[in-house]
Amino acid sequence: MRVGELSRRAGVPIPTIKYYLRTGLLSPGSLSSPNQAAYDATHLHELRLVRALIELGKMPVARVRAVLDALAADATPHTVLRAFRGDDAGHEPAARDPDREWAQGVVSGLAARRGWRIPPDHPEARRLASAVMASKRLGHAELVAALDCYAEASEQVARADSRYIAQGTDPHDRAERAVMAALLGDAMHASLRRLAQEEASRPTDAVPGTRAPCG
Amino acid sequence: MRVGELSRRAGVPIPTIKYYLRTGLLSPGSLSSPNQAAYDATHLHELRLVRALIELGKMPVARVRAVLDALAADATPHTVLRAFRGDDAGHEPAARDPDREWAQGVVSGLAARRGWRIPPDHPEARRLASAVMASKRLGHAELVAALDCYAEASEQVARADSRYIAQGTDPHDRAERAVMAALLGDAMHASLRRLAQEEASRPTDAVPGTRAPCG
Repeated sequence: MRVGELSRRAGVPIPTIKYYLRTGLLSPGSLSSPNQAAYDATHLHELRLVRALIELGKMPVARVRAVLDALAADATPHTVLRAFRGDDAGHEPAARDPDREWAQGVVSGLAARRGWRIPPDHPEARRLASAVMASKRLGHAELVAALDCYAEASEQVARADSRYIAQGTDPHDRAERAVMAALLGDAMHASLRRLAQEEASRPTDAVPGTRAPCG
Repeated sequence: MRVGELSRRAGVPIPTIKYYLRTGLLSPGSLSSPNQAAYDATHLHELRLVRALIELGKMPVARVRAVLDALAADATPHTVLRAFRGDDAGHEPAARDPDREWAQGVVSGLAARRGWRIPPDHPEARRLASAVMASKRLGHAELVAALDCYAEASEQVARADSRYIAQGTDPHDRAERAVMAALLGDAMHASLRRLAQEEASRPTDAVPGTRAPCG
């Protein structure tokens, strides 16, 4: 197909497609004449993926490229997910701060209880510690008591994602499934969390507290 | 305290504080002299909240103001959460599209199974339908099979949040707890989901599929 049909089928404007071609986010088409490139189903799929990573995942171009590179290299789901998260190696250690140290302790304790083998300087563990620290500073340190429930829910979601990944037919399929579960799962999960929250916060609901601690 | 101490204690630069004062995101201090304003613990708390909504919640100023207004009016958690999500009343109905209709059917079916009383044009239901539609377009419609597991995890989180909100001592406290659970919960949850995903995707893990469907 020509670029016009590619644009129509993916719902992506032609100038955007040209930008993706220039920046290497989209593989070049095959030249059918000196001024005419032809694209196939692989390009359509690639284009939709780039678009979803940018629009749904709100990823900067450099991270989109890292994800595509990992997919092209048939990396393991574990490696592809690292590219997806954009773990930054460089990190300025924050100044010593009792609130931050408390928050890091909370995160380490949680990781130990869940049996998670994450180093304390893991970028996502640092982000979690920042949120925990913010809860303390905002006078809502008690919210930390919900962390184990949150973690249990996250594990349930991660197991569902793992099953989806494991159903892939080959390494490339499994790597792409890992990206899809992370990208689409994040979007779905954010909406579901808000819908469930709204449902649970309806004024007519029964008084909570009669349920199991994490039920 | 003076603005300098307020800045130091909240970790927010003075020019930013002045911007918040000008735009009404922060209540004015009491004038201790014609050129000198004094701030108290209420201002510090307010400032930290504004900061967290903007930094952690990535909210535009108009939405921060809507949340603050709802808090000031001692609105119910349900109403405060609507302000937090920034539900937009105006919405252009999308052109008829079989993929979108399929996605809306998936979302309605899920809501019916969970007993969620959400109208189909709910902004968050529309966002969920967009993610579901994207999964189909990207050739990963099977991921939709994980939606019930995702929803179950979301309900678990929402129940934990409801308990935290219900522990509030008065309407204002409950409304603020609703905002905190949504804001800090979102941040914590995003990190936890990635950590759990990383843990579950370790190459050395046992083959999934031996667990319960949503366990």
